[in-house]
Amino acid sequence: MPTRPLDVLNRSLKSPVIVRLKGGREFRGTLDGYDIHMNLVLLNAEEIKEGEVVRKMGSVVVRGDTVVFVSPAPSGD
Amino acid sequence: MPTRPLDVLNRSLKSPVIVRLKGGREFRGTLDGYDIHMNLVLLNAEEIKEGEVVRKMGSVVVRGDTVVFVSPAPSGD
Amino acid sequence: MPTRPLDVLNRSLKSPVIVRLKGGREFRGTLDGYDIHMNLVLLNAEEIKEGEVVRKMGSVVVRGDTVVFVSPAPSGD
Amino acid sequence: MPTRPLDVLNRSLKSPVIVRLKGGREFRGTLDGYDIHMNLVLLNAEEIKEGEVVRKMGSVVVRGDTVVFVSPAPSGD
Amino acid sequence: MPTRPLDVLNRSLKSPVIVRLKGGREFRGTLDGYDIHMNLVLLNAEEIKEGEVVRKMGSVVVRGDTVVFVSPAPSGD
Amino acid sequence: MPTRPLDVLNRSLKSPVIVRLKGGREFRGTLDGYDIHMNLVLLNAEEIKEGEVVRKMGSVVVRGDTVVFVSPAPSGD
Amino acid sequence: MPTRPLDVLNRSLKSPVIVRLKGGREFRGTLDGYDIHMNLVLLNAEEIKEGEVVRKMGSVVVRGDTVVFVSPAPSGD
Repeated sequence: MPTRPLDVLNRSLKSPVIVRLKGGREFRGTLDGYDIHMNLVLLNAEEIKEGEVVRKMGSVVVRGDTVVFVSPAPSGD
Repeated sequence: MPTRPLDVLNRSLKSPVIVRLKGGREFRGTLDGYDIHMNLVLLNAEEIKEGEVVRKMGSVVVRGDTVVFVSPAPSGD
Repeated sequence: MPTRPLDVLNRSLKSPVIVRLKGGREFRGTLDGYDIHMNLVLLNAEEIKEGEVVRKMGSVVVRGDTVVFVSPAPSGD
Repeated sequence: MPTRPLDVLNRSLKSPVIVRLKGGREFRGTLDGYDIHMNLVLLNAEEIKEGEVVRKMGSVVVRGDTVVFVSPAPSGD
Repeated sequence: MPTRPLDVLNRSLKSPVIVRLKGGREFRGTLDGYDIHMNLVLLNAEEIKEGEVVRKMGSVVVRGDTVVFVSPAPSGD
Repeated sequence: MPTRPLDVLNRSLKSPVIVRLKGGREFRGTLDGYDIHMNLVLLNAEEIKEGEVVRKMGSVVVRGDTVVFVSPAPSGD
Repeated sequence: MPTRPLDVLNRSLKSPVIVRLKGGREFRGTLDGYDIHMNLVLLNAEEIKEGEVVRKMGSVVVRGDTVVFVSPAPSGD
């Protein structure tokens, strides 16, 4: 039985994830929520541009439409 | 239970938020409303381009289609 | 109760608004109508490019798909 | 009661309109039809690029997806 | 009664049409079919880039999503 | 009766086709399947960039969203 | 009977695939899941930019919207 993409998001709740956006920016943060459009809620999020943290946000809602990928971050990351 | 993205918007009503748009511009303002498309209503909004406030608007309707992220602004912001 | 984005448009009927389009152009005019797609009808509209009025139109239908934001213009504007 | 955008198109039937397309080109012609997607039928259409007429067409179907705005042309235009 | 855009396509069946695509390329060919998405079937199609025929195809299915306009070609074309 | 675009795909099954993608790349291969979104399955596919074969793939699923056109390849091609 | 595109994905489960994204990046990894939007789950994924592995991820959810093609990787790859 294949893993459904949203199942991976569900298993990643309360865990750190990396989110790539269209245009190249990334967010790192703790996945606190999502919906079927892949809109995401991240806590303690860092916005990263060309490898540099350019902003920290306590929480952020990312529109699914702009997401390229979501990856659970390695635990030692 | 995961946090739903629209719940975060709901909890941010009447509070300051930062909204990033596609193309890089940002709005800061008080979130006064939203709908399921993530169309937003901001009050006392500042449009920011490359760190500079380029326009102030008493109210503005932002189309959800152009939104990259919405972040509740820190209270001391 | 949150303000719904289309409510703001409704309250702006017969009043001057600023409309930003994707690509950077703007319209100023009197909002005469809209629909749920945020298609807009403006009367006595001015198209503005880089701060200059480049065209005046008695009426114009703007496709919602191209709208970035709609802002009620300040009364002294 | 607000004017619905498609009503403006309906009132413009058999009349000259200006149509701006994404990418900057324009058509001028007589509006002969439309549908809810804002697909348009123009008769005796001129395609205009940077102010120059680059092609004349007896009739043309323009896909609504590419339309930025439609404006009834002034009668003396 | 307005002309419906798909009616124009229907009347153009078995006749030569010009199809402009996003990005600027064009096809000329005989319209052999279409559907509600404005996907098109052209026969004896010529792909034209900057005024030059760059490829000839016995038949081609063009995705409606990429179509800017379809124009019945003048009979002497 | 017009030819429906998906009928052309159906008649091209097990036959060589040329597929143009947005951005300019092309695939050549044997059409092995498709669906209503114009997602395609190609066998023995060659990816072509600026006239050069840059990759060969035993099979590939191409997302319909990226397809510009599909053309049955001439038999002597 | 044509092969349905999602059938190819289903047959590729637990096997290595190459995924091309819009913008040119690629992923290689083991396909662990998918859904009807062509959202994908890859395990032991390598992100490749201009032929170089730029990141390794234990698992990643790729949004279908950004996918250009998915190809089962040759077994000796």
